[in-house]
Amino acid sequence: MTTFTYPVRVYWEDTDAGGIVYYANYLKFMERARTELLRSFGIHQNQLAKEQGVMFAIVSVNIDYLLPARLDDMLMITCTILSEGRASFAFSQDVYREQVGGDLLTRARTRAACLDCATLRPRRLPDNLLQAIATQEG
Amino acid sequence: MTTFTYPVRVYWEDTDAGGIVYYANYLKFMERARTELLRSFGIHQNQLAKEQGVMFAIVSVNIDYLLPARLDDMLMITCTILSEGRASFAFSQDVYREQVGGDLLTRARTRAACLDCATLRPRRLPDNLLQAIATQEG
Amino acid sequence: MTTFTYPVRVYWEDTDAGGIVYYANYLKFMERARTELLRSFGIHQNQLAKEQGVMFAIVSVNIDYLLPARLDDMLMITCTILSEGRASFAFSQDVYREQVGGDLLTRARTRAACLDCATLRPRRLPDNLLQAIATQEG
Amino acid sequence: MTTFTYPVRVYWEDTDAGGIVYYANYLKFMERARTELLRSFGIHQNQLAKEQGVMFAIVSVNIDYLLPARLDDMLMITCTILSEGRASFAFSQDVYREQVGGDLLTRARTRAACLDCATLRPRRLPDNLLQAIATQEG
Repeated sequence: MTTFTYPVRVYWEDTDAGGIVYYANYLKFMERARTELLRSFGIHQNQLAKEQGVMFAIVSVNIDYLLPARLDDMLMITCTILSEGRASFAFSQDVYREQVGGDLLTRARTRAACLDCATLRPRRLPDNLLQAIATQEG
Repeated sequence: MTTFTYPVRVYWEDTDAGGIVYYANYLKFMERARTELLRSFGIHQNQLAKEQGVMFAIVSVNIDYLLPARLDDMLMITCTILSEGRASFAFSQDVYREQVGGDLLTRARTRAACLDCATLRPRRLPDNLLQAIATQEG
Repeated sequence: MTTFTYPVRVYWEDTDAGGIVYYANYLKFMERARTELLRSFGIHQNQLAKEQGVMFAIVSVNIDYLLPARLDDMLMITCTILSEGRASFAFSQDVYREQVGGDLLTRARTRAACLDCATLRPRRLPDNLLQAIATQEG
Repeated sequence: MTTFTYPVRVYWEDTDAGGIVYYANYLKFMERARTELLRSFGIHQNQLAKEQGVMFAIVSVNIDYLLPARLDDMLMITCTILSEGRASFAFSQDVYREQVGGDLLTRARTRAACLDCATLRPRRLPDNLLQAIATQEG
Protein backbone atom coordinates (compact mmCIF):
# COMPACT_ATOMS: atom_id res chain seq x y z
CA MET A 1 0.00 0.00 0.00
CA THR A 2 1.45 3.35 -1.04
CA THR A 3 0.99 6.55 0.92
CA PHE A 4 0.27 9.89 -0.70
CA THR A 5 1.94 12.96 0.85
CA TYR A 6 0.90 16.59 0.42
CA PRO A 7 2.91 19.59 1.74
CA VAL A 8 1.21 22.51 3.51
CA ARG A 9 2.92 25.69 4.64
CA VAL A 10 1.48 27.33 7.80
CA TYR A 11 0.41 30.94 7.18
CA TRP A 12 -1.01 33.62 9.52
CA GLU A 13 -4.56 32.62 8.56
CA ASP A 14 -3.96 29.16 10.07
CA THR A 15 -2.76 30.28 13.49
CA ASP A 16 -4.57 31.64 16.53
CA ALA A 17 -3.73 33.90 19.46
CA GLY A 18 -2.18 30.90 21.27
CA GLY A 19 0.60 31.15 18.67
CA ILE A 20 -0.24 27.74 17.19
CA VAL A 21 -2.36 26.34 14.36
CA TYR A 22 -6.07 26.54 15.25
CA TYR A 23 -7.47 23.05 15.76
CA ALA A 24 -10.18 23.23 13.08
CA ASN A 25 -7.65 24.18 10.42
CA TYR A 26 -6.05 20.73 10.39
CA LEU A 27 -9.33 19.54 8.89
CA LYS A 28 -8.76 21.98 6.04
CA PHE A 29 -5.20 20.75 5.51
CA MET A 30 -6.37 17.13 5.51
CA GLU A 31 -9.14 17.88 3.04
CA ARG A 32 -6.60 19.48 0.67
CA ALA A 33 -4.50 16.32 0.82
CA ARG A 34 -7.53 14.09 0.20
CA THR A 35 -8.56 16.25 -2.76
CA GLU A 36 -5.10 15.92 -4.30
CA LEU A 37 -5.03 12.15 -3.66
CA LEU A 38 -8.37 11.84 -5.48
CA ARG A 39 -7.04 14.07 -8.25
CA SER A 40 -4.06 11.71 -8.60
CA PHE A 41 -6.66 8.99 -9.34
CA GLY A 42 -8.20 11.21 -12.05
CA ILE A 43 -11.10 12.30 -9.83
CA HIS A 44 -11.83 16.04 -10.05
CA GLN A 45 -14.66 16.77 -7.63
CA ASN A 46 -16.01 19.80 -9.48
CA GLN A 47 -16.28 17.71 -12.67
CA LEU A 48 -17.74 14.76 -10.75
CA ALA A 49 -20.54 16.97 -9.43
CA LYS A 50 -21.28 18.45 -12.85
CA GLU A 51 -21.03 15.30 -14.92
CA GLN A 52 -22.27 12.59 -12.57
CA GLY A 53 -24.23 14.63 -10.01
CA VAL A 54 -22.20 13.07 -7.21
CA MET A 55 -20.35 14.56 -4.25
CA PHE A 56 -18.46 13.24 -1.24
CA ALA A 57 -19.60 14.15 2.27
CA ILE A 58 -17.67 13.63 5.47
CA VAL A 59 -19.49 11.27 7.83
CA SER A 60 -17.11 11.28 10.80
CA VAL A 61 -13.70 12.47 11.92
CA ASN A 62 -11.61 11.11 14.78
CA ILE A 63 -8.61 13.34 15.29
CA ASP A 64 -5.83 13.42 17.90
CA TYR A 65 -3.76 16.54 18.45
CA LEU A 66 -0.29 15.50 19.67
CA LEU A 67 1.99 18.48 19.11
CA PRO A 68 1.30 22.03 17.90
CA ALA A 69 2.32 23.49 14.54
CA ARG A 70 3.45 27.11 14.28
CA LEU A 71 3.67 29.94 11.76
CA ASP A 72 6.06 29.19 8.87
CA ASP A 73 6.19 25.44 9.65
CA MET A 74 6.19 23.19 6.61
CA LEU A 75 3.83 20.28 7.22
CA MET A 76 3.61 16.96 5.43
CA ILE A 77 0.10 15.52 5.30
CA THR A 78 -0.06 11.81 4.52
CA CYS A 79 -3.19 10.25 3.09
CA THR A 80 -4.05 6.58 2.78
CA ILE A 81 -7.43 5.55 1.42
CA LEU A 82 -9.28 2.61 3.01
CA SER A 83 -12.08 0.52 1.56
CA GLU A 84 -15.49 0.60 3.30
CA GLY A 85 -17.78 -1.02 0.77
CA ARG A 86 -19.64 0.43 -2.22
CA ALA A 87 -20.99 3.76 -0.99
CA SER A 88 -18.41 4.97 1.50
CA PHE A 89 -14.67 5.01 2.10
CA ALA A 90 -12.21 6.20 4.71
CA PHE A 91 -8.88 7.95 5.00
CA SER A 92 -6.06 7.55 7.46
CA GLN A 93 -4.03 10.76 7.69
CA ASP A 94 -0.99 11.91 9.66
CA VAL A 95 0.49 15.39 9.87
CA TYR A 96 4.26 15.63 10.32
CA ARG A 97 6.51 18.65 10.70
CA GLU A 98 9.13 19.09 7.95
CA GLN A 99 9.12 15.50 6.73
CA VAL A 100 7.27 12.20 7.04
CA GLY A 101 8.83 10.58 10.10
CA GLY A 102 9.54 13.98 11.68
CA ASP A 103 7.50 15.29 14.65
CA LEU A 104 4.05 13.71 14.44
CA LEU A 105 1.59 16.55 15.13
CA THR A 106 -1.84 15.17 14.36
CA ARG A 107 -3.49 11.89 13.36
CA ALA A 108 -6.95 11.42 11.97
CA ARG A 109 -9.31 8.85 10.59
CA THR A 110 -12.00 10.32 8.36
CA ARG A 111 -15.00 8.53 6.84
CA ALA A 112 -16.68 9.80 3.70
CA ALA A 113 -19.87 8.86 1.87
CA CYS A 114 -20.74 9.25 -1.77
CA LEU A 115 -23.95 11.28 -2.15
CA ASP A 116 -26.28 12.43 -4.88
CA CYS A 117 -25.83 16.22 -5.17
CA ALA A 118 -29.55 16.89 -5.50
CA THR A 119 -31.10 14.44 -3.03
CA LEU A 120 -28.11 13.97 -0.67
CA ARG A 121 -28.89 10.21 -0.75
CA PRO A 122 -26.10 7.56 -0.83
CA ARG A 123 -24.69 6.71 -4.26
CA ARG A 124 -22.26 4.04 -5.43
CA LEU A 125 -18.65 5.28 -5.57
CA PRO A 126 -17.42 6.19 -9.08
CA ASP A 127 -15.77 3.22 -10.84
CA ASN A 128 -12.36 4.84 -11.11
CA LEU A 129 -12.38 5.45 -7.36
CA LEU A 130 -13.36 1.83 -6.58
CA GLN A 131 -10.57 0.65 -8.88
CA ALA A 132 -8.04 3.00 -7.32
CA ILE A 133 -8.97 1.81 -3.82
CA ALA A 134 -8.74 -1.86 -4.88
CA THR A 135 -5.36 -1.26 -6.49
CA GLN A 136 -4.02 0.66 -3.51
CA GLU A 137 -5.11 -2.00 -1.05
CA GLY A 138 -3.95 -4.78 -3.39
CA MET B 1 -30.83 57.78 8.11
CA THR B 2 -30.79 55.02 10.71
CA THR B 3 -27.79 52.81 11.37
CA PHE B 4 -28.05 49.09 12.00
CA THR B 5 -25.69 47.61 14.59
CA TYR B 6 -24.70 43.96 14.98
CA PRO B 7 -22.61 42.56 17.87
CA VAL B 8 -19.77 40.08 17.26
CA ARG B 9 -17.74 38.37 19.96
CA VAL B 10 -14.10 37.58 19.08
CA TYR B 11 -13.30 33.86 19.43
CA TRP B 12 -10.05 31.89 18.98
CA GLU B 13 -10.97 31.17 15.34
CA ASP B 14 -10.84 34.90 14.59
CA THR B 15 -7.37 35.59 15.96
CA ASP B 16 -3.90 34.88 14.61
CA ALA B 17 -0.45 34.31 16.10
CA GLY B 18 0.04 38.08 16.37
CA GLY B 19 -2.55 37.92 19.17
CA ILE B 20 -5.05 40.02 17.22
CA VAL B 21 -7.99 39.45 14.86
CA TYR B 22 -6.75 38.29 11.43
CA TYR B 23 -7.38 41.00 8.85
CA ALA B 24 -9.54 38.90 6.50
CA ASN B 25 -11.92 38.01 9.32
CA TYR B 26 -13.31 41.54 9.57
CA LEU B 27 -14.82 40.87 6.14
CA LYS B 28 -16.67 37.93 7.69
CA PHE B 29 -17.93 40.07 10.58
CA MET B 30 -19.09 42.76 8.18
CA GLU B 31 -20.88 40.24 5.99
CA ARG B 32 -22.75 38.89 9.03
CA ALA B 33 -23.93 42.42 9.83
CA ARG B 34 -25.00 43.05 6.23
CA THR B 35 -26.90 39.74 6.19
CA GLU B 36 -28.78 40.70 9.36
CA LEU B 37 -29.50 44.18 8.03
CA LEU B 38 -31.00 42.62 4.88
CA ARG B 39 -32.92 40.16 7.06
CA SER B 40 -34.37 43.11 8.97
CA PHE B 41 -35.78 44.27 5.60
CA GLY B 42 -37.35 40.82 5.11
CA ILE B 43 -34.65 39.65 2.71
CA HIS B 44 -33.46 36.10 3.38
CA GLN B 45 -30.67 35.36 0.92
CA ASN B 46 -31.21 31.60 0.83
CA GLN B 47 -34.88 32.15 -0.03
CA LEU B 48 -34.01 34.87 -2.54
CA ALA B 49 -31.73 32.47 -4.42
CA LYS B 50 -34.32 29.68 -4.41
CA GLU B 51 -37.40 31.72 -5.21
CA GLN B 52 -36.06 34.48 -7.47
CA GLY B 53 -32.76 32.97 -8.66
CA VAL B 54 -30.91 36.04 -7.46
CA MET B 55 -27.79 36.48 -5.34
CA PHE B 56 -25.63 39.40 -4.19
CA ALA B 57 -21.94 39.48 -5.07
CA ILE B 58 -19.33 41.77 -3.62
CA VAL B 59 -17.79 44.02 -6.28
CA SER B 60 -15.27 45.92 -4.18
CA VAL B 61 -14.11 46.51 -0.63
CA ASN B 62 -12.11 49.46 0.70
CA ILE B 63 -11.13 48.79 4.28
CA ASP B 64 -8.93 50.63 6.78
CA TYR B 65 -7.51 48.91 9.83
CA LEU B 66 -7.07 51.46 12.61
CA LEU B 67 -6.75 49.48 15.84
CA PRO B 68 -6.56 45.75 16.52
CA ALA B 69 -9.26 43.63 18.17
CA ARG B 70 -8.33 40.82 20.54
CA LEU B 71 -9.69 37.55 21.90
CA ASP B 72 -12.88 37.99 23.96
CA ASP B 73 -13.48 41.55 22.69
CA MET B 74 -17.11 42.37 22.00
CA LEU B 75 -17.35 44.28 18.73
CA MET B 76 -20.17 46.41 17.41
CA ILE B 77 -20.49 46.38 13.62
CA THR B 78 -22.50 49.21 12.15
CA CYS B 79 -24.07 48.94 8.74
CA THR B 80 -25.59 51.68 6.61
CA ILE B 81 -26.90 50.89 3.15
CA LEU B 82 -26.30 53.33 0.30
CA SER B 83 -28.10 53.62 -3.00
CA GLU B 84 -26.16 52.98 -6.21
CA GLY B 85 -28.90 52.62 -8.78
CA ARG B 86 -30.99 49.66 -9.86
CA ALA B 87 -28.52 46.75 -9.97
CA SER B 88 -26.02 47.52 -7.26
CA PHE B 89 -25.79 49.02 -3.80
CA ALA B 90 -23.17 49.82 -1.19
CA PHE B 91 -22.58 49.59 2.53
CA SER B 92 -20.70 51.82 4.90
CA GLN B 93 -19.55 49.86 7.95
CA ASP B 94 -17.58 50.67 11.10
CA VAL B 95 -16.30 48.27 13.73
CA TYR B 96 -16.15 49.56 17.30
CA ARG B 97 -14.95 47.90 20.47
CA GLU B 98 -17.59 47.45 23.19
CA GLN B 99 -19.99 50.10 21.92
CA VAL B 100 -20.70 52.40 19.00
CA GLY B 101 -18.58 55.45 19.73
CA GLY B 102 -15.95 53.37 21.57
CA ASP B 103 -12.54 52.58 19.99
CA LEU B 104 -12.98 52.65 16.23
CA LEU B 105 -11.09 49.58 14.94
CA THR B 106 -11.98 49.26 11.28
CA ARG B 107 -13.92 51.14 8.60
CA ALA B 108 -15.05 49.81 5.26
CA ARG B 109 -17.03 50.69 2.20
CA THR B 110 -18.34 47.66 0.33
CA ARG B 111 -20.09 47.60 -3.03
CA ALA B 112 -22.40 44.75 -4.01
CA ALA B 113 -24.15 43.79 -7.22
CA CYS B 114 -27.32 41.81 -7.73
CA LEU B 115 -26.64 38.78 -9.97
CA ASP B 116 -28.57 36.00 -11.60
CA CYS B 117 -27.54 32.79 -9.77
CA ALA B 118 -27.27 30.78 -12.99
CA THR B 119 -25.70 33.23 -15.43
CA LEU B 120 -23.95 35.54 -12.93
CA ARG B 121 -25.28 38.47 -15.00
CA PRO B 122 -26.56 41.72 -13.37
CA ARG B 123 -30.16 41.72 -12.22
CA ARG B 124 -32.41 44.44 -10.87
CA LEU B 125 -32.45 44.62 -7.07
CA PRO B 126 -35.51 43.00 -5.43
CA ASP B 127 -38.33 45.50 -4.88
CA ASN B 128 -38.34 45.21 -1.10
CA LEU B 129 -34.63 46.03 -1.07
CA LEU B 130 -35.10 49.08 -3.33
CA GLN B 131 -37.90 50.25 -1.06
CA ALA B 132 -35.86 49.69 2.08
CA ILE B 133 -32.94 51.65 0.62
CA ALA B 134 -35.24 54.50 -0.43
CA THR B 135 -36.84 54.59 3.01
CA GLN B 136 -33.50 54.51 4.79
CA GLU B 137 -32.08 57.32 2.72
CA GLY B 138 -35.36 59.17 3.13
CA MET C 1 -26.64 17.87 35.13
CA THR C 2 -27.60 21.02 33.25
CA THR C 3 -26.86 21.59 29.58
CA PHE C 4 -25.65 24.88 28.20
CA THR C 5 -27.00 25.94 24.78
CA TYR C 6 -25.51 28.50 22.41
CA PRO C 7 -27.20 29.73 19.19
CA VAL C 8 -25.25 30.08 15.92
CA ARG C 9 -26.63 31.53 12.70
CA VAL C 10 -25.17 30.06 9.46
CA TYR C 11 -23.63 32.74 7.24
CA TRP C 12 -22.03 32.58 3.77
CA GLU C 13 -18.58 32.21 5.35
CA ASP C 14 -19.68 28.89 6.90
CA THR C 15 -20.92 27.22 3.72
CA ASP C 16 -19.12 25.60 0.81
CA ALA C 17 -19.84 25.00 -2.87
CA GLY C 18 -21.84 21.88 -1.92
CA GLY C 19 -24.43 24.32 -0.53
CA ILE C 20 -23.94 23.11 3.04
CA VAL C 21 -21.86 24.04 6.08
CA TYR C 22 -18.20 23.05 5.55
CA TYR C 23 -17.28 20.23 7.90
CA ALA C 24 -14.40 22.01 9.67
CA ASN C 25 -16.65 24.93 10.59
CA TYR C 26 -18.66 22.91 13.11
CA LEU C 27 -15.47 22.83 15.18
CA LYS C 28 -15.59 26.63 15.19
CA PHE C 29 -19.25 26.65 16.27
CA MET C 30 -18.52 24.16 19.04
CA GLU C 31 -15.55 26.15 20.27
CA ARG C 32 -17.73 29.28 20.49
CA ALA C 33 -20.21 27.36 22.66
CA ARG C 34 -17.43 25.99 24.91
CA THR C 35 -16.00 29.49 25.29
CA GLU C 36 -19.38 30.85 26.37
CA LEU C 37 -19.95 27.92 28.75
CA LEU C 38 -16.58 28.66 30.37
CA ARG C 39 -17.47 32.36 30.47
CA SER C 40 -20.68 31.46 32.30
CA PHE C 41 -18.40 29.91 34.98
CA GLY C 42 -16.46 33.19 35.19
CA ILE C 43 -13.56 31.89 33.07
CA HIS C 44 -12.36 34.40 30.46
CA GLN C 45 -9.60 32.72 28.46
CA ASN C 46 -7.78 35.91 27.52
CA GLN C 47 -7.60 36.90 31.20
CA LEU C 48 -6.63 33.36 32.21
CA ALA C 49 -3.65 33.46 29.86
CA LYS C 50 -2.54 36.89 31.06
CA GLU C 51 -3.08 36.42 34.78
CA GLN C 52 -2.30 32.74 35.31
CA GLY C 53 -0.26 31.90 32.20
CA VAL C 54 -2.63 29.04 31.41
CA MET C 55 -4.43 28.04 28.22
CA PHE C 56 -6.65 25.16 27.10
CA ALA C 57 -5.60 23.00 24.16
CA ILE C 58 -7.75 20.51 22.32
CA VAL C 59 -6.37 16.97 22.62
CA SER C 60 -8.88 15.06 20.51
CA VAL C 61 -12.19 15.41 18.70
CA ASN C 62 -14.59 12.65 17.69
CA ILE C 63 -17.31 14.09 15.53
CA ASP C 64 -20.20 12.54 13.59
CA TYR C 65 -21.91 14.42 10.77
CA LEU C 66 -25.54 13.26 10.55
CA LEU C 67 -27.40 15.92 8.56
CA PRO C 68 -26.21 19.04 6.75
CA ALA C 69 -26.84 22.63 7.83
CA ARG C 70 -27.51 25.32 5.23
CA LEU C 71 -27.25 29.08 4.77
CA ASP C 72 -29.53 31.04 7.11
CA ASP C 73 -30.18 28.04 9.39
CA MET C 74 -30.28 28.85 13.08
CA LEU C 75 -28.33 26.18 14.99
CA MET C 76 -28.42 25.34 18.65
CA ILE C 77 -25.13 24.05 20.03
CA THR C 78 -25.36 22.20 23.33
CA CYS C 79 -22.38 21.86 25.60
CA THR C 80 -21.96 19.59 28.61
CA ILE C 81 -18.67 19.51 30.48
CA LEU C 82 -17.29 16.17 31.71
CA SER C 83 -14.70 15.53 34.39
CA GLU C 84 -11.41 13.89 33.37
CA GLY C 85 -9.19 14.43 36.40
CA ARG C 86 -7.01 17.38 37.39
CA ALA C 87 -5.33 18.49 34.15
CA SER C 88 -7.87 17.72 31.45
CA PHE C 89 -11.60 17.76 30.82
CA ALA C 90 -14.04 16.90 28.07
CA PHE C 91 -17.13 18.23 26.38
CA SER C 92 -20.12 16.49 24.88
CA GLN C 93 -21.75 18.65 22.23
CA ASP C 94 -24.73 18.30 19.90
CA VAL C 95 -25.77 20.60 17.07
CA TYR C 96 -29.50 20.89 16.39
CA ARG C 97 -31.39 22.85 13.76
CA GLU C 98 -33.80 25.52 15.10
CA GLN C 99 -34.13 24.08 18.59
CA VAL C 100 -32.73 21.47 20.97
CA GLY C 101 -34.65 18.33 20.06
CA GLY C 102 -35.03 19.44 16.41
CA ASP C 103 -33.00 17.82 13.60
CA LEU C 104 -29.76 16.52 15.12
CA LEU C 105 -27.02 17.55 12.67
CA THR C 106 -23.73 16.82 14.39
CA ARG C 107 -22.46 15.22 17.60
CA ALA C 108 -18.99 15.52 19.05
CA ARG C 109 -16.88 14.59 22.03
CA THR C 110 -13.93 16.88 22.55
CA ARG C 111 -11.10 16.47 25.08
CA ALA C 112 -9.10 19.45 26.28
CA ALA C 113 -5.96 19.80 28.39
CA CYS C 114 -4.84 22.68 30.55
CA LEU C 115 -1.38 23.88 29.48
CA ASP C 116 1.21 26.38 30.57
CA CYS C 117 1.24 29.11 27.89
CA ALA C 118 5.03 29.35 27.82
CA THR C 119 6.13 25.71 28.10
CA LEU C 120 2.98 24.01 26.73
CA ARG C 121 3.29 21.53 29.63
CA PRO C 122 0.21 20.22 31.51
CA ARG C 123 -1.11 22.38 34.33
CA ARG C 124 -3.77 21.81 36.95
CA LEU C 125 -7.19 23.16 35.94
CA PRO C 126 -8.10 26.53 37.52
CA ASP C 127 -10.01 26.09 40.80
CA ASN C 128 -13.19 27.79 39.59
CA LEU C 129 -13.29 25.38 36.65
CA LEU C 130 -12.81 22.33 38.89
CA GLN C 131 -15.58 23.61 41.12
CA ALA C 132 -17.89 24.31 38.20
CA ILE C 133 -17.31 20.79 36.83
CA ALA C 134 -17.93 19.22 40.25
CA THR C 135 -21.12 21.24 40.68
CA GLN C 136 -22.35 20.42 37.21
CA GLU C 137 -21.78 16.70 37.65
CA GLY C 138 -23.08 16.80 41.24
CA MET D 1 10.57 45.72 -11.75
CA THR D 2 10.05 41.97 -11.40
CA THR D 3 6.77 40.42 -10.35
CA PHE D 4 6.55 37.51 -7.95
CA THR D 5 3.87 34.88 -8.68
CA TYR D 6 2.43 32.34 -6.26
CA PRO D 7 0.01 29.53 -7.24
CA VAL D 8 -3.07 28.70 -5.15
CA ARG D 9 -5.44 25.82 -5.77
CA VAL D 10 -9.10 26.40 -4.80
CA TYR D 11 -10.36 23.82 -2.30
CA TRP D 12 -13.79 23.26 -0.71
CA GLU D 13 -12.78 25.39 2.30
CA ASP D 14 -12.41 28.41 -0.01
CA THR D 15 -15.84 28.27 -1.62
CA ASP D 16 -19.30 29.23 -0.40
CA ALA D 17 -22.86 28.17 -1.13
CA GLY D 18 -22.89 30.48 -4.17
CA GLY D 19 -20.50 27.97 -5.76
CA ILE D 20 -17.66 30.50 -5.88
CA VAL D 21 -14.69 31.53 -3.75
CA TYR D 22 -15.86 33.49 -0.69
CA TYR D 23 -14.78 37.11 -0.96
CA ALA D 24 -12.76 37.24 2.28
CA ASN D 25 -10.66 34.25 1.21
CA TYR D 26 -8.85 36.21 -1.51
CA LEU D 27 -7.26 38.14 1.34
CA LYS D 28 -5.87 34.83 2.61
CA PHE D 29 -4.53 33.91 -0.83
CA MET D 30 -2.91 37.33 -1.18
CA GLU D 31 -1.34 37.10 2.25
CA ARG D 32 0.19 33.71 1.34
CA ALA D 33 1.75 35.28 -1.75
CA ARG D 34 3.09 38.25 0.23
CA THR D 35 4.56 35.89 2.82
CA GLU D 36 6.36 33.91 0.12
CA LEU D 37 7.60 37.09 -1.58
CA LEU D 38 9.05 38.24 1.76
CA ARG D 39 10.53 34.76 2.26
CA SER D 40 12.24 35.08 -1.15
CA PHE D 41 13.96 38.18 0.32
CA GLY D 42 15.13 36.11 3.30
CA ILE D 43 12.42 37.48 5.61
CA HIS D 44 10.76 34.80 7.75
CA GLN D 45 8.06 36.52 9.80
CA ASN D 46 8.13 34.05 12.69
CA GLN D 47 11.88 34.60 13.05
CA LEU D 48 11.49 38.36 12.63
CA ALA D 49 9.04 38.46 15.54
CA LYS D 50 11.26 36.33 17.77
CA GLU D 51 14.62 37.89 16.93
CA GLN D 52 13.74 41.54 16.29
CA GLY D 53 10.36 41.86 18.03
CA VAL D 54 8.85 43.19 14.83
CA MET D 55 5.68 42.27 12.92
CA PHE D 56 3.84 43.57 9.87
CA ALA D 57 0.24 44.73 10.19
CA ILE D 58 -2.15 45.47 7.37
CA VAL D 59 -3.25 49.11 7.37
CA SER D 60 -5.64 49.10 4.42
CA VAL D 61 -6.92 46.96 1.55
CA ASN D 62 -8.59 48.14 -1.64
CA ILE D 63 -9.84 45.14 -3.56
CA ASP D 64 -11.93 44.76 -6.71
CA TYR D 65 -13.73 41.52 -7.52
CA LEU D 66 -14.01 41.16 -11.29
CA LEU D 67 -14.75 37.50 -11.96
CA PRO D 68 -15.44 34.56 -9.64
CA ALA D 69 -13.11 31.63 -8.99
CA ARG D 70 -14.50 28.14 -8.51
CA LEU D 71 -13.62 24.82 -6.89
CA ASP D 72 -10.54 23.17 -8.41
CA ASP D 73 -9.43 26.36 -10.18
CA MET D 74 -5.69 26.97 -10.15
CA LEU D 75 -5.04 30.63 -9.40
CA MET D 76 -1.91 32.67 -9.96
CA ILE D 77 -1.39 35.45 -7.42
CA THR D 78 1.04 38.14 -8.45
CA CYS D 79 2.75 40.33 -5.89
CA THR D 80 4.71 43.51 -6.46
CA ILE D 81 6.11 45.42 -3.51
CA LEU D 82 5.95 49.23 -3.48
CA SER D 83 7.98 51.67 -1.42
CA GLU D 84 6.15 53.91 1.09
CA GLY D 85 8.95 55.27 3.22
CA ARG D 86 10.71 53.86 6.27
CA ALA D 87 7.92 52.34 8.37
CA SER D 88 5.38 51.13 5.85
CA PHE D 89 5.16 49.55 2.41
CA ALA D 90 2.51 48.43 -0.04
CA PHE D 91 1.71 45.58 -2.37
CA SER D 92 -0.01 45.49 -5.71
CA GLN D 93 -1.58 42.08 -6.32
CA ASP D 94 -3.60 40.49 -9.12
CA VAL D 95 -5.31 37.11 -9.14
CA TYR D 96 -5.50 35.30 -12.47
CA ARG D 97 -7.08 31.99 -13.39
CA GLU D 98 -4.66 29.35 -14.70
CA GLN D 99 -1.89 31.72 -15.71
CA VAL D 100 -0.74 35.32 -15.47
CA GLY D 101 -2.51 37.03 -18.35
CA GLY D 102 -5.48 34.62 -18.15
CA ASP D 103 -8.86 35.70 -16.71
CA LEU D 104 -8.21 38.50 -14.24
CA LEU D 105 -10.37 37.70 -11.20
CA THR D 106 -9.32 40.12 -8.50
CA ARG D 107 -7.03 43.11 -8.01
CA ALA D 108 -5.89 44.60 -4.75
CA ARG D 109 -3.64 47.22 -3.27
CA THR D 110 -2.62 46.49 0.30
CA ARG D 111 -0.70 48.74 2.67
CA ALA D 112 1.30 47.33 5.56
CA ALA D 113 3.08 48.90 8.52
CA CYS D 114 5.99 47.60 10.50
CA LEU D 115 5.09 47.38 14.20
CA ASP D 116 6.75 46.54 17.47
CA CYS D 117 5.22 43.22 18.61
CA ALA D 118 4.89 44.34 22.23
CA THR D 119 3.76 47.96 21.92
CA LEU D 120 2.18 47.81 18.42
CA ARG D 121 3.97 51.13 17.69
CA PRO D 122 5.55 51.86 14.25
CA ARG D 123 9.07 50.54 13.69
CA ARG D 124 11.57 51.02 10.89
CA LEU D 125 11.39 48.28 8.25
CA PRO D 126 14.15 45.64 8.55
CA ASP D 127 17.22 46.52 6.47
CA ASN D 128 16.99 43.51 4.20
CA LEU D 129 13.40 44.48 3.35
CA LEU D 130 14.36 48.09 2.59
CA GLN D 131 17.17 46.81 0.36
CA ALA D 132 14.89 44.34 -1.40
CA ILE D 133 12.32 47.07 -2.07
CA ALA D 134 15.01 49.44 -3.39
CA THR D 135 16.42 46.73 -5.64
CA GLN D 136 12.99 45.73 -6.93
CA GLU D 137 12.04 49.29 -7.75
CA GLY D 138 15.50 49.84 -9.23
